[in-house]
Amino acid sequence: MQPEALGHYQARINRYLGEIFDRLPEVEPRLLEAMRYGTLLGGKRARPYLVYATGTMLGADEASLDPLAAAVECIHAYSLIHDDLPAMDDDHLRRGQPTVHIAFDEATAILAGDALQTLAFELLCDSPLPDTVAPNRLSMIRLLARASGYQGMCGGQAIDLASTARRVPLDALKRLHNLKTGALIRASVELGCLAVPQLPEPHAEALRTYADCIGLAFQVQDDILDVTGDTEQLGKPQGSDLAADKSTFPALLGLDGARDTAQSLYQDALTALAQLPYNSQPLEGFARYIVERNR
Amino acid sequence: MQPEALGHYQARINRYLGEIFDRLPEVEPRLLEAMRYGTLLGGKRARPYLVYATGTMLGADEASLDPLAAAVECIHAYSLIHDDLPAMDDDHLRRGQPTVHIAFDEATAILAGDALQTLAFELLCDSPLPDTVAPNRLSMIRLLARASGYQGMCGGQAIDLASTARRVPLDALKRLHNLKTGALIRASVELGCLAVPQLPEPHAEALRTYADCIGLAFQVQDDILDVTGDTEQLGKPQGSDLAADKSTFPALLGLDGARDTAQSLYQDALTALAQLPYNSQPLEGFARYIVERNR
Repeated sequence: MQPEALGHYQARINRYLGEIFDRLPEVEPRLLEAMRYGTLLGGKRARPYLVYATGTMLGADEASLDPLAAAVECIHAYSLIHDDLPAMDDDHLRRGQPTVHIAFDEATAILAGDALQTLAFELLCDSPLPDTVAPNRLSMIRLLARASGYQGMCGGQAIDLASTARRVPLDALKRLHNLKTGALIRASVELGCLAVPQLPEPHAEALRTYADCIGLAFQVQDDILDVTGDTEQLGKPQGSDLAADKSTFPALLGLDGARDTAQSLYQDALTALAQLPYNSQPLEGFARYIVERNR
Repeated sequence: MQPEALGHYQARINRYLGEIFDRLPEVEPRLLEAMRYGTLLGGKRARPYLVYATGTMLGADEASLDPLAAAVECIHAYSLIHDDLPAMDDDHLRRGQPTVHIAFDEATAILAGDALQTLAFELLCDSPLPDTVAPNRLSMIRLLARASGYQGMCGGQAIDLASTARRVPLDALKRLHNLKTGALIRASVELGCLAVPQLPEPHAEALRTYADCIGLAFQVQDDILDVTGDTEQLGKPQGSDLAADKSTFPALLGLDGARDTAQSLYQDALTALAQLPYNSQPLEGFARYIVERNR
């Protein structure tokens, strides 16, 4: 059910990230280990997949996409480390493993997250890029920063915290997730777009629409699985969103309504891809995977 | 005793930072307020001063230095917010005011720090720069990232945490502070250097030496004041480093030895400036201020 290339890109990004940590000097071994642990703990590598699948579809080679995929995954990993902290979601398990502040300690987890955020920008600054693409470097940094910060992921997480134990209307819930998870998923696709010299704007626009649809579908499916999945498959306690008194799509729409929403977003994602003159099968497969996955 | 221009640049950067927060959209009001509070809480604005004093000495105008000074201060502010957290230094007071996690809450403090780090890079990406200096934009981002991350400030903070309750040899203590505070002070001077089109490398090198000397002198003087200052002047409890069982320069060198070290670093800073064909009085005055200040 998962797209054919997912395993390939998972292995590729894990190897590349591992090499990054291997190359870093031993400034402080425990911090380095926490950064490595938090990044290589596992996970679907959805964001790197989107960078690779978008970029290669448009003609970029995989090697030139490695630093872009790694940068976005470093931002994602930092956000998970901080979200899991006792003052935030207080999660002890992530992907079935102890979270960073459990495996290390809270101070190290805070610093590891901080340093991973910086590392993302260092990777975009320093990694070699093809001459034809190097002029896009600043745009890459700009878009990753915008997607990560106050007007993106961080802002979304703050809205999420402020929304806990409150019934949030559907529009606000969508906005929350568009920022909290959608912004970085969109940035992944946009980084793939910037990995080729000049993408026609209508193509970039269709890919952004695709990204927005699957970003929201991803969250809707996450909420559905929180109700229907089992703890072992999820790698986190089933029902933890409900227990944390968070607004969810099933709570607002019912389970069937949430499933309909996910399907409709999936169809919109396919419609966007249909406008493109490329072989978009890997992106189609990923959209399907998102709404069909059971963990 | 403080350099003449300090008050001018303090007012300038405070106004500029305030305008940045005023312009940000209301994604999440509480997060925005925490970011503003943590950044505008006060402080000497040593890093912005160094950006302005270095840049204007070399011929840049103040307006083109604003975003560089703001970016480095956002990184500094984020680091203070996170350092003050219960899991780190657990400080309730900063500059005589409640720290961010006291005035708001811990989760908001973590996110405000995260978002301020991102904001620093957004400022460097987006702020207008003179055409002659715009080609340096990527170098600015790169040097701020390197100074902030695992190989700079974050790494230094991790070493600091790992060194608590251990007697650290002098070389290791210097390295700790060269990373924890020195890296960002050096980056401030280097950002000022990048604000003009092409600085001869020997001049840049002399300015880096100056920055390294005053960066370390700053910390030595901080340690001295922790022993000799009073709580009201310091804005934090006198003796808090001793209470936290941290290695300090007075503990390793004695109070007189620490004072000699500060003086010797001050002289080295002046020697470095003497090699430059510019009016370096504002930088000289700042070096003197650092070793003579009583808070």
